[in-house]
Amino acid sequence: MTQLDSIFSHVDQNSADYVRRLGEAVAIKSVSGDAHHRPEVVKMANYIISWMDKLGVSHTSHDPGFQELDGSQVKLPPIILGTYGTDPAKKTVLVYGHYDVQPALKSDGWTSDPFTLVEDEQGRLFGRGSTDDKAPILSWLWVIEAHQKLGVDLPVNIKMCFEGMEESGSEGLDELIVQEAKGYFKGTDYVCISDNYWLGKTRPCLTYGLRGIAYYKLTIAGPAKDLHSGVFGGTVHEPMTDLFAIMSKLVAPDGKILVPGIYDQVRPLTDKERGTYNGIDFALPDYEGAVGGKVVIQDNEHEVLMSRWRYPSLSLHGIEGAFYSAGAKTVIPAKVTGKFSIRLVPDMDPAEVHRLVSTFIASEHAKLNSKTVCTVEPLHGARAWLADPEGPSYAAASKAVQRVFGVKPDLTREGGSIPVTLTFQENLGVSVLLLPMGAADDGAHSINEKIDKKNYIEGIKLLATYLHEVASA
Amino acid sequence: MTQLDSIFSHVDQNSADYVRRLGEAVAIKSVSGDAHHRPEVVKMANYIISWMDKLGVSHTSHDPGFQELDGSQVKLPPIILGTYGTDPAKKTVLVYGHYDVQPALKSDGWTSDPFTLVEDEQGRLFGRGSTDDKAPILSWLWVIEAHQKLGVDLPVNIKMCFEGMEESGSEGLDELIVQEAKGYFKGTDYVCISDNYWLGKTRPCLTYGLRGIAYYKLTIAGPAKDLHSGVFGGTVHEPMTDLFAIMSKLVAPDGKILVPGIYDQVRPLTDKERGTYNGIDFALPDYEGAVGGKVVIQDNEHEVLMSRWRYPSLSLHGIEGAFYSAGAKTVIPAKVTGKFSIRLVPDMDPAEVHRLVSTFIASEHAKLNSKTVCTVEPLHGARAWLADPEGPSYAAASKAVQRVFGVKPDLTREGGSIPVTLTFQENLGVSVLLLPMGAADDGAHSINEKIDKKNYIEGIKLLATYLHEVASA
Ligand SMILES: [Zn+2]
Ligand SMILES: [Zn+2]
Ligand SMILES: [Zn+2]
Ligand SMILES: [Zn+2]
Repeated sequence: MTQLDSIFSHVDQNSADYVRRLGEAVAIKSVSGDAHHRPEVVKMANYIISWMDKLGVSHTSHDPGFQELDGSQVKLPPIILGTYGTDPAKKTVLVYGHYDVQPALKSDGWTSDPFTLVEDEQGRLFGRGSTDDKAPILSWLWVIEAHQKLGVDLPVNIKMCFEGMEESGSEGLDELIVQEAKGYFKGTDYVCISDNYWLGKTRPCLTYGLRGIAYYKLTIAGPAKDLHSGVFGGTVHEPMTDLFAIMSKLVAPDGKILVPGIYDQVRPLTDKERGTYNGIDFALPDYEGAVGGKVVIQDNEHEVLMSRWRYPSLSLHGIEGAFYSAGAKTVIPAKVTGKFSIRLVPDMDPAEVHRLVSTFIASEHAKLNSKTVCTVEPLHGARAWLADPEGPSYAAASKAVQRVFGVKPDLTREGGSIPVTLTFQENLGVSVLLLPMGAADDGAHSINEKIDKKNYIEGIKLLATYLHEVASA
Repeated sequence: MTQLDSIFSHVDQNSADYVRRLGEAVAIKSVSGDAHHRPEVVKMANYIISWMDKLGVSHTSHDPGFQELDGSQVKLPPIILGTYGTDPAKKTVLVYGHYDVQPALKSDGWTSDPFTLVEDEQGRLFGRGSTDDKAPILSWLWVIEAHQKLGVDLPVNIKMCFEGMEESGSEGLDELIVQEAKGYFKGTDYVCISDNYWLGKTRPCLTYGLRGIAYYKLTIAGPAKDLHSGVFGGTVHEPMTDLFAIMSKLVAPDGKILVPGIYDQVRPLTDKERGTYNGIDFALPDYEGAVGGKVVIQDNEHEVLMSRWRYPSLSLHGIEGAFYSAGAKTVIPAKVTGKFSIRLVPDMDPAEVHRLVSTFIASEHAKLNSKTVCTVEPLHGARAWLADPEGPSYAAASKAVQRVFGVKPDLTREGGSIPVTLTFQENLGVSVLLLPMGAADDGAHSINEKIDKKNYIEGIKLLATYLHEVASA
């Protein structure tokens, strides 16, 4: 029996205990977005720290200070920095995760209490935070514990960075990473993050790319105050009319971005990249099921995936300052701010995108011959992230998946951003790997969030195996 | 000294008392839109009824029942029906007004307590409801009182219809008018309403037209639930994209309605009508001041007035279902409802407008080649109202203005709707006259609402004189 075989059977033997402990963690309502729950977020930090103490993981708690929340100053939860092993002969893997969760109320439509972990006959473990991100972060600790119990040497040093504000803007995290890049984080060889999901329900994946984002506020100002459309309608240039005229020029109904020059920055599709889409575990009917309506634009899987992962998209999100309630208010809004964002892909540069967007909007506004005033403001911009899926960390993870699941993982990208990924890559200068444990249908931010027991237990084995594989990478 | 001369001097002699009494009425916080203030609305009804009792006005209180407000069932305030005189040899004038007011809080920016009537050095009487509509409705009672005190015969019978829900949808009023058209309201010769304002600050006017309205909800539905733009952006037809595409086709930045056929229904401008705009007391700079920004479309007074009064306009009011807060949410809204309305003028028919609008929107949606689902729903429609400004009631009012103010009144129309106007005209089949007391700068629904003491006192004389003039019309 190899070392990993004995770890695997230890994990199987203790699976009920891992579920019980996940239940302890889920019971702590560590909702970061609500000031009232902040003590529970801190309680969850202490729960992790108590495990670190038991396992001999040395740790420090970084205090990011205060935030303004619901009108008062609220203390931020700690960012826990753990260190297990400092052997200069070993590789050092930094793992990141978050111990805070999304809000959840039974009355939102949960079939069971969201903060009581419940297992059904299909082995699904329901509970807020079960998959996002409590099972993954705890699993790193169970991997250490298994090695200790079996007297197996952990072949890498582990650094852990666990934050309690991921669901609420990761306050203070970027600053800490920048500040500690040559301090605590020094010596990191690889970063591994388990905080996303398989593309489907059955095949594991490694995720090597994320789109970036450029978010915009487009403000059109006219009258000094809201006007009554009966009294003034027909006699004033209305900001809403101009906003609709301009925003309707940004994107076509088939999703094509109409801002001139945008596609010039998009890295061309190569035959090699096209090949990576073959055989990926993804079916259009499943995707239509997730969308919940027959509104998918593309009619084949590869085009859908490319449109999510490797092409930019532009979405109109809403308007600030206009009438938004039910009913029939006859207002001419005085000043309206349209919100839209562009998902960025390699090699789009947020600064260049901003130049194109603001130039285009200014010229479209000029065409209107309107007396309104138009301004464009970028709210935030983040470049796309792309790792090398052929590098040593990905190779190690691929071997680990094959060892644990008996299949080659899909190589996937995602459409959304996980900002910390780029922060780690840019500041530590090392490869970042996204190694998900949960499945596509886990419902991370929805009601009835779950992780399959199989994903959790096999996931512990996967993380352990990855560490062994990457040790010799 | 004629009868009217003695009435005038009585009114002048008692002006301080009229101001004091208006103060009593303003002190009653009869805000109809807030359930907590409902007892004060009823108190205001009782204040009026107590005056009716003192003056021998017989009255009944119609109970419109209950309404749903702020989540509970709230009893509606009474519609007071008063009768003063039933001489079949006299003409019968029905006067309408409302005793409820808009909400007001000192913290909204009032310079004095909104429910304490305050007079400044310029003779402006500040207070919520001062001009809208407490001074006008009380004035009808002071006219009766003056006749009684002086022993002058009132040359007409008066019916009074005073409601307490005008600022909140006039619940129950239309039903009552329809129901009592052949009952209480039978025998009405003329309707006179004092609940609007002079076009400017100095010259009285008679108002003979109001635009109607057709209000629309345009709903575009796509995915079953809101989606994350990172995950789904670029792969689904987004309802917002389609909504902006369609709503941007409804109206041009210069205010021209782009729905085909809309202008075919608009009554052509005749030379005679054009002549009525000459000499009206209206200046572009004042109008720009009211708008509070240099966004007026037309560059001369007549065109501004025609655009407000006799041409249709289309305003985009907002979107229900989209992101509307501050900040940067990356949502793809699943279902969005655009709100817009068209102000209607003679001879536009709401049903025909609806046919044109829904046909146009369906064809624009079809052009998009989108898989979203598009529906158009008319929320409410009201025809424009137009009276004959050469009829006997207007002639009487014109003589009254000349007698009291020494000038010919402007003949004006307004851009907004006063639905009761049309209800009275259509159900009683008689001429309705709008005879304003307040001035353009009274700020009826704003902070620091006021009525000039001169407008109030001369307004009492105006109403008295109108009754004398119309008696022999
Ligand atoms: Zn997460
Ligand atoms: Zn999350
Ligand atoms: Zn009013
Ligand atoms: Zn009002």
